[in-house]
Amino acid sequence: MREISDFKSVIDQYKVVFFDAFGVVKNYKGLVPGIEKTFAYLEAEKKEFYIVTNDASRSPVHLAEKYHQMGLNAITHDRIISSGMLAKEYLDLKVDDGIVAYLGTRASAHYIESSDLHPLPVGSIKPSDIDNVNALVFLDDEGFDWCRDLNKTVNLLRRRTIPVIVANTDDAYPLTINDVSIAVGGIATMVENIAGKEFIRFGKPDSQLFMLAYELIREKVRVTKPDIVMVGDTLHTDILGGNKFGLDTILVLSGNTLPGDAETKITSTGIIPTYICASAVVV
Amino acid sequence: MREISDFKSVIDQYKVVFFDAFGVVKNYKGLVPGIEKTFAYLEAEKKEFYIVTNDASRSPVHLAEKYHQMGLNAITHDRIISSGMLAKEYLDLKVDDGIVAYLGTRASAHYIESSDLHPLPVGSIKPSDIDNVNALVFLDDEGFDWCRDLNKTVNLLRRRTIPVIVANTDDAYPLTINDVSIAVGGIATMVENIAGKEFIRFGKPDSQLFMLAYELIREKVRVTKPDIVMVGDTLHTDILGGNKFGLDTILVLSGNTLPGDAETKITSTGIIPTYICASAVVV
Amino acid sequence: MREISDFKSVIDQYKVVFFDAFGVVKNYKGLVPGIEKTFAYLEAEKKEFYIVTNDASRSPVHLAEKYHQMGLNAITHDRIISSGMLAKEYLDLKVDDGIVAYLGTRASAHYIESSDLHPLPVGSIKPSDIDNVNALVFLDDEGFDWCRDLNKTVNLLRRRTIPVIVANTDDAYPLTINDVSIAVGGIATMVENIAGKEFIRFGKPDSQLFMLAYELIREKVRVTKPDIVMVGDTLHTDILGGNKFGLDTILVLSGNTLPGDAETKITSTGIIPTYICASAVVV
Amino acid sequence: MREISDFKSVIDQYKVVFFDAFGVVKNYKGLVPGIEKTFAYLEAEKKEFYIVTNDASRSPVHLAEKYHQMGLNAITHDRIISSGMLAKEYLDLKVDDGIVAYLGTRASAHYIESSDLHPLPVGSIKPSDIDNVNALVFLDDEGFDWCRDLNKTVNLLRRRTIPVIVANTDDAYPLTINDVSIAVGGIATMVENIAGKEFIRFGKPDSQLFMLAYELIREKVRVTKPDIVMVGDTLHTDILGGNKFGLDTILVLSGNTLPGDAETKITSTGIIPTYICASAVVV
Repeated sequence: MREISDFKSVIDQYKVVFFDAFGVVKNYKGLVPGIEKTFAYLEAEKKEFYIVTNDASRSPVHLAEKYHQMGLNAITHDRIISSGMLAKEYLDLKVDDGIVAYLGTRASAHYIESSDLHPLPVGSIKPSDIDNVNALVFLDDEGFDWCRDLNKTVNLLRRRTIPVIVANTDDAYPLTINDVSIAVGGIATMVENIAGKEFIRFGKPDSQLFMLAYELIREKVRVTKPDIVMVGDTLHTDILGGNKFGLDTILVLSGNTLPGDAETKITSTGIIPTYICASAVVV
Repeated sequence: MREISDFKSVIDQYKVVFFDAFGVVKNYKGLVPGIEKTFAYLEAEKKEFYIVTNDASRSPVHLAEKYHQMGLNAITHDRIISSGMLAKEYLDLKVDDGIVAYLGTRASAHYIESSDLHPLPVGSIKPSDIDNVNALVFLDDEGFDWCRDLNKTVNLLRRRTIPVIVANTDDAYPLTINDVSIAVGGIATMVENIAGKEFIRFGKPDSQLFMLAYELIREKVRVTKPDIVMVGDTLHTDILGGNKFGLDTILVLSGNTLPGDAETKITSTGIIPTYICASAVVV
Repeated sequence: MREISDFKSVIDQYKVVFFDAFGVVKNYKGLVPGIEKTFAYLEAEKKEFYIVTNDASRSPVHLAEKYHQMGLNAITHDRIISSGMLAKEYLDLKVDDGIVAYLGTRASAHYIESSDLHPLPVGSIKPSDIDNVNALVFLDDEGFDWCRDLNKTVNLLRRRTIPVIVANTDDAYPLTINDVSIAVGGIATMVENIAGKEFIRFGKPDSQLFMLAYELIREKVRVTKPDIVMVGDTLHTDILGGNKFGLDTILVLSGNTLPGDAETKITSTGIIPTYICASAVVV
Repeated sequence: MREISDFKSVIDQYKVVFFDAFGVVKNYKGLVPGIEKTFAYLEAEKKEFYIVTNDASRSPVHLAEKYHQMGLNAITHDRIISSGMLAKEYLDLKVDDGIVAYLGTRASAHYIESSDLHPLPVGSIKPSDIDNVNALVFLDDEGFDWCRDLNKTVNLLRRRTIPVIVANTDDAYPLTINDVSIAVGGIATMVENIAGKEFIRFGKPDSQLFMLAYELIREKVRVTKPDIVMVGDTLHTDILGGNKFGLDTILVLSGNTLPGDAETKITSTGIIPTYICASAVVV
């Protein structure tokens, strides 16, 4: 059995901490109880941190506001790195003009707004628009009619050879203590299989999200990979992705991975965190 | 290049013909023009035939009525073998009582009606019903709210370890000359991946549907596998399944496989029909 | 927790028993201790039985001899249904002449010997033979040079569009109490992915093997599916396949599924045996 | 139909060119005829370049020597970025000591040599070594006995929960004009499936290899992503990976993608190069 380490003792060895959001900082009920102490400690110790999240449902500004409403002011919008930001960078670099069709809420469309692109929900695309659609983005599982708009998406992809971006690689996310909700990553896989195309996916465990956080932190402080630890509740995304990028990793047992399951899951997947802690709360 | 054979000359070599429905006998506009001549010829020559279809959206009686409405009276309900019939056989043999939850229209629920089972659309399941749900069946892509009911299905499968039956293995089906519609088989794959369970699938290319047709035909006439030919428009279902079951196969170019694509598709998949014909129309 | 049933009491309810071989009747050390009492009991009670196995490494006659050498004479060759027999039936029905290339030992080639076919190990195929190769069969993981012959197989399939048959769907099999060996099913999957073709697989959980056993038993005795129970140690092959075919199933804990893992595996896969027994030994 | 662009005119728009090796600079016969003119042109125009390759079979120094032997001196070892370098970085950062088991030639083991690690071919691991094996690396398809050592690898992974690194994501590579060879990426997928673990893969299309090249180029010259173009012959690795990383991409038709297939492959996969050129030769 792997030992459970004290969270504070572990992060004392690092200059920078990357946190996953859901299951680590917050859960379906609100903030993880006591997590504000962790951020106070980081500030007192002058350690830098980032929230590194597969959430493309709203902008970093909106995501930060949610934390502030819950009473956690330490997480400012410039501390949030979301997979939606990679979708935005892709569109900026690779799509010059035309319509960018999307599946998601109006709030998620933040990531595809730019001077020369015209974001349009799939549900609003008219036959006369089809030839001008130059990219398609899966942003959120909400904000559209699944049956109507997923069928429309499959048929759009039969007519147009365009890049398709999936801005959240998760298959599902927790909704309450018992229930999950199908995430846009799971929906995108279904459409990808039926359309027979290869989509471009952004989000943990892919290293591009870690790279973005790494570049941004290095603009602020002089650190290298051994100075950074990634904290997450999910082996397949946070821990696998952090390991692959060359970071040390902490698995916390406050979310997706239950205390009784950690050892079995590590052994059966071969995804091995550097440390295991009960939670990310500094006590 | 493989040669295109004359359909009539080919079926003259067999005593029994199995037909796929969509793309062979009918298409999105109605009957394949001239197909009634084929069934008149079969009758005149006293050849037996079956429609072997992955369609579980309605009962054989309803499916036959549709043909009669289009003017094709030769296809009686006892000539139709649908994947829904295997779902029904499974439930009869393996589920004794309780609620059978389903996704599909009321017409598709035909296949789960039996004296001791209580069919209930997923959308109508109440929390108090959950402990009595003893099986779940994917029947049709219509008749339910995808977002609400697929999420409800995932969470039902997190609470209950029950058999899940997929009564149609197709991922998509043609809607018009240009458009397709996501089929219940594609939806089921998404739910299977997210729930992490292994579903039971009935339908071509699986041999169980061919076996059912084979058993029924042998109750009527004394034939063996070399006496039967399977006619289909799709390599992956009709031809692969027919070949594997040991039947000779005819690929027709009136549906899913276009005349210009047949050779490429055969070479790239390695699924090889015994014959290729322009259509199943006897001229 | 599901209850552990007494094996004898369970089989008393059935007229026919289908047994998986490895992990049920025998293991890496020889016979499962006491299993001869089970076959004596079946004989005394006049219950019919079959061994239903994914083993295509040798003929039923050879497989039966192995049992006799270990002192179990009840298992005669006509009681053994192997996935190799389906490969043989396929070739008889669907391949008229020419060379059938194979991967496996000389003993496994039993299944492709027939009057008009010429079996040839992949390693012995000369360039001048290539145009005459009309089918390829994966029979056993032994008897060939993996590196040389798997590369040769991939390139053969790039030149020739021919049916490829996999006569054993297993990925691995137990070698000692601790070690497994990669099985020919696992090797075939690698070649299938690299060649980009669709292979034809015979073996549990596919229903065609159950169908063959069912047809043979019905030539002997008048039974229907509810009269038969399938006994196996592997959820994914024996139990899933038995369930799907409409048989009742018994999971025994003497092989692949350890007593401590059964509940977790059933819940996580959703593959549910009708009964669980410690072993197939009648005590 | 997409137009075929002139290679020289396209690269004139960029400051830096990334080249795939096989199918672009060299092929099974040696150098792509005329390719030396391209590197002379880059030098004359003072454009920077890198070879970005999934080849982990030997060190950059050895790879460069091969080019020099063929008469191409422009490609120095510091211009070669290989997926093996990422494996090396991973081990440096994440594995402190002990044995690193590997599959590959002695030349490929270059990437796992470091002061505190002990590289050992899987074939040389003794039972007493097993507890000291702290990582496993797939480097090359040559240099080991596939049957013996792949079985040994599967059983090693059943005993030890350790990180497994795949230093080449390719499934196959061209050997002659007609033949391919199974690559170590394809072999690793088989072992991963059988062992049921999740391996760490380095190589195109994954963005980490592009990131490494991007970091190195930025230590030399001040460029951003729009200044760089990636040249490759394979849609799934070079073009998908380049696109995802935010680079413009050139598909050349001198390797994996044949002139007659480019349009079909682009449409069927949805992977779209910025340009298509006949080859990477400046004429």
